[in-house]
Amino acid sequence: MTVYNFSAGPAVLPTPVLEQAQSEFTDYKGSGMSVMELSHRSSLFDAIIKDAEKRLRELMSIPDNYHVLFLQGGASLQFSMVPLNLAQNKKALYVNTGSWSKKAIAAAKELGNVEVEVIASSAKDNFTYIPEITPDMIDQDAAYLHITTNNTIVGTAYKSIPNAGNVPIVADMSSNILANDYDVKDFGIIYAGAQKNIGPAGLTVVIIRDDLLGLYEVNEPMLDYKTQAAANSLYNTPPTFAIYIAQLVFKWLQELGGLPEILKQDQEKAQLLYDAIEKSNLFTSPVRPDSRSLTNIPFVTGNAKLDQKFNVEALAAGFENLKGHRSVGGMRASLYNAFPKEGVQALVTFMEKFEKENGGL
Amino acid sequence: MTVYNFSAGPAVLPTPVLEQAQSEFTDYKGSGMSVMELSHRSSLFDAIIKDAEKRLRELMSIPDNYHVLFLQGGASLQFSMVPLNLAQNKKALYVNTGSWSKKAIAAAKELGNVEVEVIASSAKDNFTYIPEITPDMIDQDAAYLHITTNNTIVGTAYKSIPNAGNVPIVADMSSNILANDYDVKDFGIIYAGAQKNIGPAGLTVVIIRDDLLGLYEVNEPMLDYKTQAAANSLYNTPPTFAIYIAQLVFKWLQELGGLPEILKQDQEKAQLLYDAIEKSNLFTSPVRPDSRSLTNIPFVTGNAKLDQKFNVEALAAGFENLKGHRSVGGMRASLYNAFPKEGVQALVTFMEKFEKENGGL
Repeated sequence: MTVYNFSAGPAVLPTPVLEQAQSEFTDYKGSGMSVMELSHRSSLFDAIIKDAEKRLRELMSIPDNYHVLFLQGGASLQFSMVPLNLAQNKKALYVNTGSWSKKAIAAAKELGNVEVEVIASSAKDNFTYIPEITPDMIDQDAAYLHITTNNTIVGTAYKSIPNAGNVPIVADMSSNILANDYDVKDFGIIYAGAQKNIGPAGLTVVIIRDDLLGLYEVNEPMLDYKTQAAANSLYNTPPTFAIYIAQLVFKWLQELGGLPEILKQDQEKAQLLYDAIEKSNLFTSPVRPDSRSLTNIPFVTGNAKLDQKFNVEALAAGFENLKGHRSVGGMRASLYNAFPKEGVQALVTFMEKFEKENGGL
Repeated sequence: MTVYNFSAGPAVLPTPVLEQAQSEFTDYKGSGMSVMELSHRSSLFDAIIKDAEKRLRELMSIPDNYHVLFLQGGASLQFSMVPLNLAQNKKALYVNTGSWSKKAIAAAKELGNVEVEVIASSAKDNFTYIPEITPDMIDQDAAYLHITTNNTIVGTAYKSIPNAGNVPIVADMSSNILANDYDVKDFGIIYAGAQKNIGPAGLTVVIIRDDLLGLYEVNEPMLDYKTQAAANSLYNTPPTFAIYIAQLVFKWLQELGGLPEILKQDQEKAQLLYDAIEKSNLFTSPVRPDSRSLTNIPFVTGNAKLDQKFNVEALAAGFENLKGHRSVGGMRASLYNAFPKEGVQALVTFMEKFEKENGGL
């Protein structure tokens, strides 16, 4: 049985990447060592981390006045690091578009010395859309405006980045980094947990504009962007194997044709599924059409028992991790870059069959 | 050419572990998915993390009133987390036995609200021994006594754990965890970066006595031991693949005979090298005999040019990462659990040959 992995993260990785990593797993480039066994100060690992950064810069057209950091702790640690580094005793603006935004807001509030203002929210409508942000909503004295560009759980995404004037935009891009046409220049900080479009869990990529380094004293060295940037992500031992897998993923993306090509594929995959949902008399998307994510696509029957039946049968048919997040229910297909189009086609066929068998037209 | 990897970390891993991980790298237990692709909420990963914890508890005889946490950020993040969680507006005691102790001390001071007292230090003697700690040196009102049980760079280790009365001992055990006969009950907290005796870089193991959870408000959720313990290390996505490799390493250790057996092997390996150094007229150990580490063994000729010649020739002969730390110079052999005895024998033979060729007896 072919298995299709719709996991929201850690998620499916490109088959050629897994195969290459497997083939050199115990002997990297004839060194007699696994990448996991390389000293992080060795020339072999130095080449890996530098090449990973170079390729990510090329893929995302990251300007020279931005640092690229390979850190640990996931987006959850960024929720604290961002306000610690940028907004002590200042105001920080947040847009609330779901669970992860709420966690970011809560973490900023918990610091106790940040004035947190939520300037827009779609909470009262179950986060089914991205609220409009207009320039007049942005206090130009704020330290930053924080947005969650793609909301993994509810399946919404920003189609364009708000105009915040001179206020830097800080973006949690965990679930749609490398799957969008945003311009890095529109952001002050972009951060992303790797476990969706980049590589294995345990690696966090941070892209930060140089003028945002060192604005405040941060009392924990590991949480200080300036310290991490000065050490080129080697302040302490980084997650070396995860960085190596990320390098292979970046190389795979470049050989495929870079972001324009993968974005085209992502759009085709998403369209296939959204079209099937629109056509269906059983399944609906809870998300407003203008806010729909390319990477995370929830759908429901409106009947919890039927959703459960679908999930049980889908799992038995090789569709892994389709069950919606426990906070939402229903189904959710995460179609990250490495997810194959055949898997979407197979899902659509399965949905049509299920609909026929369960009282659909 | 056989390659022997003397890296201080990330370090050599057991060959059977690497081979098993390689064999199931693209298809874990017939799931059709790599371990890296498993959701951290899946039953397959749940079994991995629970089994890893169970095996570590068995190996180290960890009592039930201790939590085992699988975190990120390395020992360097623990340097801040320990005082944040245990000593806000209190006194914390430190023993200074080298670079890593100094970093731990500096991080505690940087918080600004911890009264840091260094109760003993071997700094004036280049950290060549572990200072004696007697009960009268311990202020019983202190929040904890911090020690670095093994000093990777200078090659010293505590042969026994000091008696600190009722003051909890917090130990950075990064470089000799699972390679000692300490008793977990003698510690309040043990922490260790995985990249020496546990698994790949990017995983940090913390063993914490339950009464030390939740003593203070910690304003960064990811840095709060209580939050991490309450979530069983799943507060956010953990470094899943690194935890899986750790599980395999723990299993390998248990099948070998557990800590008594590996400690016997470690002692034999270390003795081989220390004996060769003692016998030599060229090489000396800078470390006082009563403080010598089993896992990290520095040696020098006393002549920087000759050290360099040795390092060049050793590298050409397949001895990787023997060069001493940049802060110490000379040579350093890190003989972690997975390092094979044949590698030590080969090194000793190489040292004898080098000595003959370079004016030795």
